Amino acid sequence: MAELLSLAEARAAVLERVVPLPAEPVALGEAGGRVLAEDAVSTVDLPPFPSSAMDGFAVRAADSPGRLVVVGSVAAGAPATAGLRAGEAMGIATGGAVPPGADAVVRIEDVVLEGNTVEIPGVGEGKSIRPRGGDIREGEVVVEKGTRMGAAHVAALAAAGAAGVSVSRRPRVAVLATGSELRPPGELLGPGQIFDANGVLLATALSAAGAEVEVLPAVEDDPDAHRDALERGLGADVLVTTGGVSVGPHDLVRSILRSLGVEEVFWGVAVKPGKPLAFGVLGTTLVFGLPGNPVSTLVGCELFVRPAVLALQGAPEPGPVYRDARLAAAVKRNAGRDELLRARTRFTDDGVVVEPVTGQESHMIVRAAGADALVLSPRGNGELPEGSHVRYFPLA
Amino acid sequence: MAELLSLAEARAAVLERVVPLPAEPVALGEAGGRVLAEDAVSTVDLPPFPSSAMDGFAVRAADSPGRLVVVGSVAAGAPATAGLRAGEAMGIATGGAVPPGADAVVRIEDVVLEGNTVEIPGVGEGKSIRPRGGDIREGEVVVEKGTRMGAAHVAALAAAGAAGVSVSRRPRVAVLATGSELRPPGELLGPGQIFDANGVLLATALSAAGAEVEVLPAVEDDPDAHRDALERGLGADVLVTTGGVSVGPHDLVRSILRSLGVEEVFWGVAVKPGKPLAFGVLGTTLVFGLPGNPVSTLVGCELFVRPAVLALQGAPEPGPVYRDARLAAAVKRNAGRDELLRARTRFTDDGVVVEPVTGQESHMIVRAAGADALVLSPRGNGELPEGSHVRYFPLA
Repeated sequence: MAELLSLAEARAAVLERVVPLPAEPVALGEAGGRVLAEDAVSTVDLPPFPSSAMDGFAVRAADSPGRLVVVGSVAAGAPATAGLRAGEAMGIATGGAVPPGADAVVRIEDVVLEGNTVEIPGVGEGKSIRPRGGDIREGEVVVEKGTRMGAAHVAALAAAGAAGVSVSRRPRVAVLATGSELRPPGELLGPGQIFDANGVLLATALSAAGAEVEVLPAVEDDPDAHRDALERGLGADVLVTTGGVSVGPHDLVRSILRSLGVEEVFWGVAVKPGKPLAFGVLGTTLVFGLPGNPVSTLVGCELFVRPAVLALQGAPEPGPVYRDARLAAAVKRNAGRDELLRARTRFTDDGVVVEPVTGQESHMIVRAAGADALVLSPRGNGELPEGSHVRYFPLA
Repeated sequence: MAELLSLAEARAAVLERVVPLPAEPVALGEAGGRVLAEDAVSTVDLPPFPSSAMDGFAVRAADSPGRLVVVGSVAAGAPATAGLRAGEAMGIATGGAVPPGADAVVRIEDVVLEGNTVEIPGVGEGKSIRPRGGDIREGEVVVEKGTRMGAAHVAALAAAGAAGVSVSRRPRVAVLATGSELRPPGELLGPGQIFDANGVLLATALSAAGAEVEVLPAVEDDPDAHRDALERGLGADVLVTTGGVSVGPHDLVRSILRSLGVEEVFWGVAVKPGKPLAFGVLGTTLVFGLPGNPVSTLVGCELFVRPAVLALQGAPEPGPVYRDARLAAAVKRNAGRDELLRARTRFTDDGVVVEPVTGQESHMIVRAAGADALVLSPRGNGELPEGSHVRYFPLA
């Protein structure tokens, strides 16, 4: 592992191999969290007609100020059947269609009603009227391709008339933890055994990124068991293994993946934790071999696998998105590798402060769970003093 | 609506009426995004045994430096069957159980193998050994009650032996859009009609907050239709209506809710958009009457409904969590109401900058979809100049 790739080189090498997945239609109610596969355009002008911004009276501005005859009223969804003539006013509800002939709305709070007449103050043309197409016009783009959609996006699409949209298919991800020491949580540990945390870690993180995750049963350090499980996992869009990528005699993953036809793109990244990370491809299937320590898996997932899962869905900026902060305490740098520290963020009047948690070893997943961010400590000598400017990204 | 509540008063009045939901068990694989109902403690010491942090040789530090006889090897999951005696070394893989008698591990890179002997450099006691319980001890808290769980939390729980956890039940939320002008997206608009965007907006936002959302068919401005639908919605833990809470003759929601036994806690908040927001309770059911403009619904949802949905699940700090930023452009303040501006965030070396989007009217949901944050412009006179310090929170 002489020639470790840098973090940026490794990330670029992964994203270069991503072939975006095909699109599929979904109903708008299922579109939250999905990535739009093509620009979505409006089927209507929005608002579709000039409408009232207030409860009040539709009038002609030229008639104001003055006393007008009330000739009817417009509810939302129930437009006037006739236009407004000089000297007339029409009651109108918020959202109601402004009748032809009217060019302003006077708020109900500002008028005096007397019998079938209404006295209005002076009002300018267009007052309290939402012009047709003021939000967007028919044919214009409502939400851009590549957008991962939240509530406001789906609402905008609905308002523009879309009942469904075209989104990228969810990536199918197979997760395989390897290691004879692994037992499923809930069982009893034998001597030398530990509970598998990586399967559920990857399933949770990648489901949240839009993937459909299948966690395969963990396999022992046995070549046949590895081969069967890896072969099965290679049927997915992404295969993520944990363990078995270091240099020990039981580290079978890389050699068996090669024998199954996987082209190894790189092995070894100048990052801590997670150095012996392997990445390869078989056709369009992406294969990540993450180290077995759960914190290494967490970091490798956030740096490489989650971005790949988002890029497969067509996200143009799949992250991680670094932000700026200051260090709450000095940290020792690693001479050869960029380090991702588990930290807690505090939002202060003076910007974001990140405080590394105690217990930064790569097996300490409970300590890591006390963090809400990964802080990048660039490789180098000496330490980063308290108050140093650093970059971080939040953990989901 | 003379006595408008402040934003803080209204939020407090909502959270005061929240009765947290009962707990239910879930498998760890389903626990992402759920809120832990009780402190989860470790079933084991973690690591459960002293284990090797490296691939190398388990030795006695007192024997170093020197040449030792290799008497066997320890794989992960396959502990030694006998202890280590003076003058002996044992091969050991990362994660392997350090054999009794050994008190240090020497990395494989640092030894010279010759036949069945190994030459080791000087090494200190405890070197490259992860002590039993170094991450957490049996019986200690792994994840605290009230935590909304991400990947690291479920991984920590798995590592600590939990196959499942106790989480608060998902709140059942009924959503009802009201207004004769509303048509479902995908149909054709008649005169004066618009597409309903609020149903899908609330479903997307509140599902992401952990709720099970049922969107009821939108109802016309007809008392009987309102009564039937509202009665049905009151069977949920939370009922959210949109439209019909202003002062017009077609604003039926509040009066019919009252006739159905709902106690109105408040109506009217000094916020823009969203002033005529109504909040009430029937038993433990929370009832939100949001104004009908989609941006008002978005803002009301983020300020009040999402926090309530999280608080129902036992989240101790249900948000929104405001952060600090500077304004990219001057904004005019509203004299009487705190305003939530739709804005785009930029992360700069010099902190976060927020730029309000063009088109801040409450019907402009497409413009709002171009934003990724809501910025608080406190009520007051004049304007907030460019560069002003403001608070904001991200939109999901």
